[in-house]
This record gives sequence, C-alpha cells and structure tokens, in this order.
Amino acid sequence: MTNSATNLRLKLPMACIILEVIIIILFGILVQYDDETDAKLWHKEIANGSSNYDNDFYYRYPSFQDVHVMIFIGFGFLMTFLQRYGFSSVGFNFLIAAFALQWATLMQGFVHGMHGGKIHVGIESMINADFCTGSVLISFGAVLGKTSPVQLLVMSVIEVTLFAVNEFIVLSVLGAKDAGGSMTIHTFGAYFGLMVARVLYRPNLDKSKHKNCSVYHSDLFAMIGTIYLWMFWPSFNSAVTAHGDDQHRTAMNTYYSLAACTLATYGLSAVVAHDGKLDMVHIQNAALAGGVAVGTAGEMMLTPFGSMIVGFLAGTVSVLGFKFLSPILEEKLKIQDTCGVHNLHGMPGVLGAIVGAVTAALATKDVYGDGMADVFPDIHSGEVEASFQGVRQAISLVVTLGIALLGGLITGFILKLPIYGAPPDTICFEDGIYWELPGEEGSHEELTTVRTPDEAEKLNA
Amino acid sequence: MTNSATNLRLKLPMACIILEVIIIILFGILVQYDDETDAKLWHKEIANGSSNYDNDFYYRYPSFQDVHVMIFIGFGFLMTFLQRYGFSSVGFNFLIAAFALQWATLMQGFVHGMHGGKIHVGIESMINADFCTGSVLISFGAVLGKTSPVQLLVMSVIEVTLFAVNEFIVLSVLGAKDAGGSMTIHTFGAYFGLMVARVLYRPNLDKSKHKNCSVYHSDLFAMIGTIYLWMFWPSFNSAVTAHGDDQHRTAMNTYYSLAACTLATYGLSAVVAHDGKLDMVHIQNAALAGGVAVGTAGEMMLTPFGSMIVGFLAGTVSVLGFKFLSPILEEKLKIQDTCGVHNLHGMPGVLGAIVGAVTAALATKDVYGDGMADVFPDIHSGEVEASFQGVRQAISLVVTLGIALLGGLITGFILKLPIYGAPPDTICFEDGIYWELPGEEGSHEELTTVRTPDEAEKLNA
Amino acid sequence: MTNSATNLRLKLPMACIILEVIIIILFGILVQYDDETDAKLWHKEIANGSSNYDNDFYYRYPSFQDVHVMIFIGFGFLMTFLQRYGFSSVGFNFLIAAFALQWATLMQGFVHGMHGGKIHVGIESMINADFCTGSVLISFGAVLGKTSPVQLLVMSVIEVTLFAVNEFIVLSVLGAKDAGGSMTIHTFGAYFGLMVARVLYRPNLDKSKHKNCSVYHSDLFAMIGTIYLWMFWPSFNSAVTAHGDDQHRTAMNTYYSLAACTLATYGLSAVVAHDGKLDMVHIQNAALAGGVAVGTAGEMMLTPFGSMIVGFLAGTVSVLGFKFLSPILEEKLKIQDTCGVHNLHGMPGVLGAIVGAVTAALATKDVYGDGMADVFPDIHSGEVEASFQGVRQAISLVVTLGIALLGGLITGFILKLPIYGAPPDTICFEDGIYWELPGEEGSHEELTTVRTPDEAEKLNA
Repeated sequence: MTNSATNLRLKLPMACIILEVIIIILFGILVQYDDETDAKLWHKEIANGSSNYDNDFYYRYPSFQDVHVMIFIGFGFLMTFLQRYGFSSVGFNFLIAAFALQWATLMQGFVHGMHGGKIHVGIESMINADFCTGSVLISFGAVLGKTSPVQLLVMSVIEVTLFAVNEFIVLSVLGAKDAGGSMTIHTFGAYFGLMVARVLYRPNLDKSKHKNCSVYHSDLFAMIGTIYLWMFWPSFNSAVTAHGDDQHRTAMNTYYSLAACTLATYGLSAVVAHDGKLDMVHIQNAALAGGVAVGTAGEMMLTPFGSMIVGFLAGTVSVLGFKFLSPILEEKLKIQDTCGVHNLHGMPGVLGAIVGAVTAALATKDVYGDGMADVFPDIHSGEVEASFQGVRQAISLVVTLGIALLGGLITGFILKLPIYGAPPDTICFEDGIYWELPGEEGSHEELTTVRTPDEAEKLNA
Repeated sequence: MTNSATNLRLKLPMACIILEVIIIILFGILVQYDDETDAKLWHKEIANGSSNYDNDFYYRYPSFQDVHVMIFIGFGFLMTFLQRYGFSSVGFNFLIAAFALQWATLMQGFVHGMHGGKIHVGIESMINADFCTGSVLISFGAVLGKTSPVQLLVMSVIEVTLFAVNEFIVLSVLGAKDAGGSMTIHTFGAYFGLMVARVLYRPNLDKSKHKNCSVYHSDLFAMIGTIYLWMFWPSFNSAVTAHGDDQHRTAMNTYYSLAACTLATYGLSAVVAHDGKLDMVHIQNAALAGGVAVGTAGEMMLTPFGSMIVGFLAGTVSVLGFKFLSPILEEKLKIQDTCGVHNLHGMPGVLGAIVGAVTAALATKDVYGDGMADVFPDIHSGEVEASFQGVRQAISLVVTLGIALLGGLITGFILKLPIYGAPPDTICFEDGIYWELPGEEGSHEELTTVRTPDEAEKLNA
Repeated sequence: MTNSATNLRLKLPMACIILEVIIIILFGILVQYDDETDAKLWHKEIANGSSNYDNDFYYRYPSFQDVHVMIFIGFGFLMTFLQRYGFSSVGFNFLIAAFALQWATLMQGFVHGMHGGKIHVGIESMINADFCTGSVLISFGAVLGKTSPVQLLVMSVIEVTLFAVNEFIVLSVLGAKDAGGSMTIHTFGAYFGLMVARVLYRPNLDKSKHKNCSVYHSDLFAMIGTIYLWMFWPSFNSAVTAHGDDQHRTAMNTYYSLAACTLATYGLSAVVAHDGKLDMVHIQNAALAGGVAVGTAGEMMLTPFGSMIVGFLAGTVSVLGFKFLSPILEEKLKIQDTCGVHNLHGMPGVLGAIVGAVTAALATKDVYGDGMADVFPDIHSGEVEASFQGVRQAISLVVTLGIALLGGLITGFILKLPIYGAPPDTICFEDGIYWELPGEEGSHEELTTVRTPDEAEKLNA
C-alpha cells in the first residue's frame, strides 16, 4: 500500500517542523500573558481590590475543557465511522487541531487588536482558538479519506487565516452577534470544506467505495464522538458569552434545542430509512444539528420554547438532507461530502444565522432589561435599532458564505497541486497508506484454522 | 430480520413526533426562565448588589456536565456489553434520555410548585431532569434487549410522571433528605424496572440466549460506561446539595465509598467467580454500588470512615447478588433482569436508604453546628427531633418501594399490549431488528477465504 | 490458561480485603474532615465573613475531576493497546488506582503534617492522592502484562509510601516547587517502575512476543486514553497551584507545550518510522511528553514561547527514545519497558526538572511582581536567592532519582518472590489468565462455517 507518491518521510516532517518553528518564533516575538495570567499584572489587580474568583479562569475554564473535549474527542471519534480510517480520523484530527489552535492564536490575535504590538493570551483566547480549530475540523469532514495530512495542514494554514478575517468582519466591523458560531464556525467551515471537496472532485472515487462505509464497531466508536459533542454543546455555545445570566441561558437554550432535535432525528430517521429501521448516519449527525442551529440565538432571549422549535427544525432538515440532498450534491454538483457536513453544519448553520437575525430584530428593552447591554450593546446604547441589528446579522451570513466559498475555491486549487502525497482513487479511506498497521487479532490462530462446530464448541465452553 | 410486527416506520415516528409536539406546546404555555437565566431579572439582582459569581450556574454547571456524561455516556456504554446490542444500548439510551429530560422538566415543574402558573427553569431544574432520566435508564437496564423503542418511550412517559410524584412525596411531604437519590432514583428505578420485567416475562427467552452475552470488545466498550459512572458519581451525589461544605463533603464521601467498594468488588469477584478469575460483570457493575449506597447519607456527616464501610458493604452485597440472587430472581420469581439492576441499584439503593435513616437519626447539633440548617433544616429549626427525621427517611423508603412496584406493575401491563413492535423471543438482544446494520469488516476477504498458515504469515508480514 | 500457580481465588481476595480493612481502620482512627468539608467548621468560617464561593471546592473540583479522568480513563485506556490485555489494562488500572488513592491519603497525611494527631481531608488531599496514584500507574506501565494483580497491589503499598517520603523531602525539606510533578510524579514513577522491571527481567519473554503488540481496534481504544490525557493535562499541572493567575497561567503553558509537542511528534514519527508512515506508538505516547516536561515550570513565568520550546524538545526526545533507546534498554540493560514509560515519563520528567531549575534560577522580582509570593515564597520573603532556588530544584531531581531507583530495586526483589501468582513467560500479555473471557463474536456462526464467496455475498447484501 505504499508508493513513492504517497510516501511522507520528507513531506510531513518538513510541514510539521517548519510550521512549528515559524509559530514558535512568532510567539516569541508577539505573544504575552494577559492581565489575568501574568503574575505581576494580576497581583496588581489584586492590590486594587480584585479577588481571585474574579479571574476569568474560574468563569470559563470548565467550559473551555468541555470545548476541548468536543474538538479532540468529539470531532475525532465522530469521524471514526469509516471501517479502516480510524487511525487517520482520530490521528489527523489530533494533528491539525494541535496545529490550528496555535495558528489561530496568532491570526485571531492579529485581527482582534494588538496591545502595544503584542498579542495577549488567556482563557478566552484559548477558547477562541479552539473554536477556530472546530471550523477547520468541519472542513476536514468534507474531505475525509481523500486527503493527505500535508494537504490538511496547508488547508489549515489558509482556512484559519480566512476564519480570523471573516470573524473580524462579522463581529467587529458588522457588529453581529454569534457567540456559538452558527455563522463564523459552522457555516464557514462547512461551505469552505464543501468547496474544497468540489475542486478536489474524484470521478473515480467509486474504486474505493467498499472502504467508504462503516462496520459494527467503527459505528460504536463514532457514537463516542457524537455523544460527547451532544453533551458538551451547551458549553460550546456559552463558552464566550457574558458572565452570569448569559452563560446560564445560552447553555440552557442549547440543552433544550438538542433534546428536541434528537426526538425529531429518531422520528424522521425511521420514516426515511430502509424498512423503517434507524440509520446510524442520521443518529450520529442529525441529532447534533440542534446545537449548530442555536449557535447565534442561544445567548438571546430565545426561550426554551423557541429553542425547541429551532432544534426540531434543525433535526428535520438534517435527516432530510442526508436522505435526499447528499446524493444530489454528489451526482449533480460533484461534491463528495464524506461526513455529510452540509447536513450537520451547513444547512443548520444557515438556519441558525436566520434564527439569530430574526431573534435580534425582535429584541425589546421590555424583555432584556439591563441585560440588553450584554447581549446587544449597540441596541442598548441606542446606536442601532433592533431591526437593524437583524439586518447586520443577515449581512454577516452573506459575507460568511462569500468568504467561505471563495476561500474554499482558492484553497481547493492550491491543494490540487500534485505535491502533497494525496492518496490515489483506489486507496482512499484507508489507514494503511499513512500509518503502520498492526496485524489482525488472532490472525495466526483463528482465521487460518477451519474449525468444526464441535471444536469451536469446546473452545468456547 | 424484519417483519411487519416489528417494523417501526410508522410507530416510532408517531411516538417521537407526537410526544415532541406535545412537549413543545406545553413548554410554550408553561415554561419560563428563572431569575438567574432571564436577562432582565438577573440584571435586577445585579442592580440589587449580587455579583455574577453568585449566579448558581457557577456553583452547579460543572457538576451538571458530569451528571450529563453519566446519563449519556455512562449508562449508554455500560449497556453495550451485549455482543450485538451496542447500537440499541447507546442509541435507545440517547433517545429515551433526550425525551425523559424534557418530560421530567414539565412533571417536576408541576409537582414542585409553579410560580404564577409558570414552571421556572435553570441549572437546578436541568440537573433534576437529568436525575429523573437516570431513574428511567435504570429501568431500561432491566428490560434491555427485550423491548422496542416505542415501548421504552411509553415507559418513560409513565415512569417520569410517577418519579415526580414519588419525589414530591418523599422530599416535600415527608421531608426526607435524598440528595443523591438512593431512594428516589436508584431504588425507584430498579424496582419499577424489575416489576416491568416481571410482567413482560418471556418463558422462551432462552431462544435468544446465545446473543445475551458479551464479546471481548463489547466488554471494553462497557468499561467506558463503568469508569465514567465511577469517576463522576461524586458530582452526581453533590450536584444539588447546598453550596459550600455540603457539596464538598458529599463529593468526598462518595469518592471514598467508591474506592472501598472497588476493593471489595475485586476481592469478592475472585472468590465467587469460576476458577478464581475475575468476572467482568462484577467489575462493570458492583464497583459502582458504593456510589448508590451513599446517595442519601453522602451529604450528612457520615465521615470518610463511615463512607468506606458503606461502600465496602455495597460492593459485597452487589457481587453476592450477581452470583447467588440473580439466578433465583430469574428462575423462581421470573424476573429476567438483563443488566442486573437489582444488584447495582436495587439492593444498594435500599442499603443507602437505611444508612441515610440511621445517619439522620444520629445527627446532633454538636457535630453539625450551624451546618444543620443546610442538611436537616427541620431539625435545625426545632420542628423535629433527629430520631424522627430517621423515621421519615425510613417511611420514604417504604413509600418509594410501594410506588415503584405498583407503578411498574401497571406499566408492565400497558407495555404488554401487542402494538409497540416488541421483538419476538428468537431475536431479542439483536440490533438488526431496529437498525440498519453495516456489513462486516473485511467480510469479502477474510472470512470467505480459507488461508493456509503460509499465506496468512505473508499477509501479516 | 489456568493453573494452580496463577490461580488467585485466595490470593487476590486476601490482598484486597486485608488491605481495605486496614485502610478503613486507619481512616476511622486518623482521618477527619478539614475546615471546608466539615459542616460545623465551615459554618464558623461563614459566620466569620467567608462566603461559600471561597470554599476551595469551587476553585479545584473541576480540575480534580479532569485529573480523575486522566487517572482512570487516561492511564487505563492508554494501556489497552495490547491485543489481548484490555481487561487487565483497564481493570488492574482501576483496582490499583482505587487502592492507591486511599493509601496515599494516609501516607501523604502522615508526612505532610498531622493536625492534633489527625489527617485532614478535602479537595486538595483528593487531588494529591490522585497524583500519587498517577505515579504508581506509570510504574504499572513498565511492568504491564508481566505481573499479577497481587504483585501490583504490593508494589502500590511500597511505592505510595516512598512517593510520600520523596514528595515530603522535595517539597517540604528542600523547598522545591513541582506543582505538576515532573519530578515527584513522572521521574519518580518512571525510574521506580523501570528498576522493578529490571529486577523482574524475563529472559524468555519472547515466548509471549506474539501477544505483545496491538491490533487495529486495540489501538483505537488506546487513543481514547491518549486524547484524554492530552486534553486534561492543563488541569493536571494547574490543579494544586495557587488560586488566580497561577492556575490560569499553568493551564495555558501546558496547553501550548502540548500543542508544540504534538507537531514535533508527528514530524519526527514520519522521519524515523518504517517507510515514512506514522507509528501509533509515537502518537499515543510522545505527543504527551509536552505535558510531563512543563510539570515543574508550568506555574512559573515560562511564557508561551518557552512552553512551546520545551514541548517541542520533549516530543523530539520521546520519539527518538522510542526508536533508538528502547531497544538498547531491553537488549543491553535488560529492562523490558512494556509501555515505554522511559520515553513518555522518564526522560521528559528529567527534562522538566531541568527546565524548572533553570526557570527558577532566572526568576526576578521584575517579572513576577507580588506574584512571587505564590510561586516562590522563599525568594519573595528574601530567604533564598533565585539562583539557590534553582539549586534546590536540581538537588530535588537527584534525590528523586535516588529514592526511585533504590525503592524500585528493593520492591523488585520483593515482587520476585514466587507467591503472588505471576504469569509464566509463555502467557504474559494475556487476559485469559486472570479474567473469565467471553466467547468470540459470532464464533458459532462465522468461524465455524466456511462460506463460499457467493454465500458471503448474499449474506452481506
């Protein structure tokens, strides 16, 4: 399963080590502890009357760790559903996430404002870096099994950079709200990845068709990813919202949205799947769409009722997408979306952006009280009307789609260069091309021995 | 593996979607943010001098997430031990938990007191809903492999409702303490489920006997469930206790109880199991009994010493139950308890209730100081003597057993109606009846090819 | 697979139950709630003006739970890479961790100072007990597959005791800092275990060679362990540092060190492994070395830049160790290090100690400000110069190595007595010797039936 074209002995080390050395140099020049991580500066705050429990660490670290689990376990194991791509799913997820979070710290630091020429880091920059990483991992899902780790690293370099630019435009220039990233993370990551997949279209991918499916235990491993994503999504959406009621409410809205989404997913799956049976693809993916779809509006006064309606719709859209839209994407649009990120992140992300725009446009002082200052500071200050905040949100969606599609297009062509050790059509979805594989369990005994039923009976007695 | 009787194309969607629509409507009419999740109300509290770190979110959200992991990963994977029921174990666990937490929010809201006709929700209601869900999942363990998801949803509707009624009687009417739910969660869930299993007794279940056991990797998946339950049980028992020393002490008592229980479990397992070997069934289950058994007394001044004795007893009782009592339950009482919930939740739950009653009866002002107000407010206020608090606890156990058994009896008969697509005796414990199953790994290559040792050698070189 | 020498029907129960009874008695005599877990004492503090959020529980419990996950899931699953030793890896890890944390509470309580003849316990003692347990589990890694659970319990008794003595000398007598345990946990555990492995050298271990390797799914289970260790290492290193900036900074330094380490690991693995492919052994282990190597300096003002350099070096050293040093250790020094703990904990631990000494020696008031009081109280108080603090750190490394090697030597000889039911050379790395194993999945159908390709085709249709 090896040939010189896919041999990475030089390519992968060069990519990893050059990138890491560049990052370390840039960190040396540019990155500093912020006020809450620096020994001297924090103790100045203490001297000025702060208490240690004011340190943002205690407000956000538990959420950060939950997000971290989503990034490394959630995304990593969700993609282990492929029968012979578990090492790559978890392993490349691990690699590009570890890279992307460092690169994102720099890129987000650049665009979100330097402090006297320095990037300040603390728990919030760590969460934001993990968020940006999530976007890259969504795109990874679209090209899973068909790309080399070198391609993935190059994709990460570009995508993280564009993510930071888009995030800056959406949040800082346009003044939109998107705490859980329906737009900046999910819509961006999905459409960027889909466009990359389009450019990397492989007409002969059916040669690897028998590998592009799951086996019993690989589906169970994937459920580990699904369940962790599902459980910790409330932490994801609330990780960077304002302290107090905002974090509390965002977590709760997400919790209800996901619960309703799950019921819709099971119901719809049995309707559309073969013979009235449940389809693991739906359960593993569509049940999560409720988290995506309240990524923008989760911090708003969406109410549990509203959250549940959004979650129910998201689950419905997602299952129907897997059943009816994915085949069309592949056949007509030539987009081979391995994990179906269009159904889990694309459409639910757009839905979430629309829900966010509508909810923002309906915001009133009567409902938000002084809490308006946290959720919509510009409405609170009188700078804009609620309806205009809704318009900002809608424009942000359009901008996000534009940057994602254009960025994905360019990135796709860069990744198409035949220098990254990409797998040939015949051995996609196969770990053996990039990993030393162990032998099979008991291959020397069981498989080579034809047992009679009697012998087997004894052995298992 | 499919026939019209077990086809769920209409039944499951109808159940899921009708239930979810009812829930959404009821949430729309009845459910409101509480003071700490509502933007306006919380900012009023801030204006009155509260700080954001007073928000209950920061006291309880990390515990909530640990409980959430126990419910979805812990219970879900604990039940994957069956060789061909992993999809259903994790998947139906996911479905009924996502349903039950919504329904529990409503039912617990009704009985625990409405606020001006509205149910108020926040982090504490989320934890309580997850707790109630845990009780349903315990019952699920008793009927695992022998029920359709529609039956499970119907069971959840009834059990959640009765759980809320019982919880109200125990905590509010009788004034008992049961923060970790030895009675309200474990005893209730176990005996309810056992009674349902009794009514659903299948005399010909041995036709599926060869599926009702584990394989090597399914036992490893189950250990994921076990270990998560074990690790986070301190969070479970302390999730809704009073702030400060109470949460701290409850977590620590549970930690020590579980550690002692684990040693007892390993010791006893080697004594009773075949050939002096350890039995995975004991390790996966009995090692957890220590968490169940301090569910009531964990918040009391049980001391680490007392906690360890309780844990040691619980592990002992549980292993002996698996070895000696389970066969009797099945043969004499006709209770086919798939997961042995009687040994993990039933007997240890009753033990926990008794320990709670005794510990409460021994409470003195000398030991608790002003902390008595948190643990036993009625003793603190002088309303009752400690000994009477013990009596209340004991009565609560009896009430819980009564409601659980009666409720399970009725529910069992409702579930026996031949309309829910339950599996026939010959294909219990089998995912294929409700799930689209993937093909086998390498089935086209390995299993169909009889290799000579030489060929195999080469292949694995 | 059973014979009387390895039969544990009497040995394991005796070990477990005698040890547990001794522990319970000692807890009864010696252990008390501390001020923050005792109902009366905490409410006295409340009466004196403390608030519930001052309770250390809220500062440390989330970190504790992350550490707990590392101990029970992280270490447990990391060792499941062996094809037929998953039950033992997770199961013995579970047993000895549950034992060691109790024993550590007592031993650490003895040496760290009694309060009026009593050991006080709270969240910090729980974390420290888990830390000590981690050290034992590192040693377990060196002897994995070649020891009986009784041997492991005996090893734990001795190692925990010596750990507490060494920790006391390093932290209290020598006044060194080592919050994340580069020295006290990793260096100690690794060299203790390596010395035990040396004494227990088995010249004929190659008879079990075919079991001493992984299979596809066992490597995926091991990745669960790796990823959890990687994600939660920031919590590990920061769990007992001072409140505020210290916890915050330690977590962040560790996060960056690990990210840089991961890139170095992937790069180096592709360089040194066969055919330019990635080697799971490196990914599973070396990517974690960055956490080990900032265990001492993580709480210092190492800067993200410094952390990344350390992480990068640690990953490099670790991969090279697996490739070039491990074979030498085995062939020349007769140390059969099953998990390669020398590469993951040994060398990176020593590196971490050196980095800590250098960083301490460079500490200035200008950089630390008043925060010096938290990180280096003796420098802050003027008791010692920074350079002398560096010397203390270096001496601590030497002391740790000495106690570990000597302790491991003695322990090895004790464990060599032929009374513990150790496995013979021919059946090491095999669960069947100590566990009742389930039958193989579908063994009655698939393996006993020689299917023609046509039949198989139909079956999978």
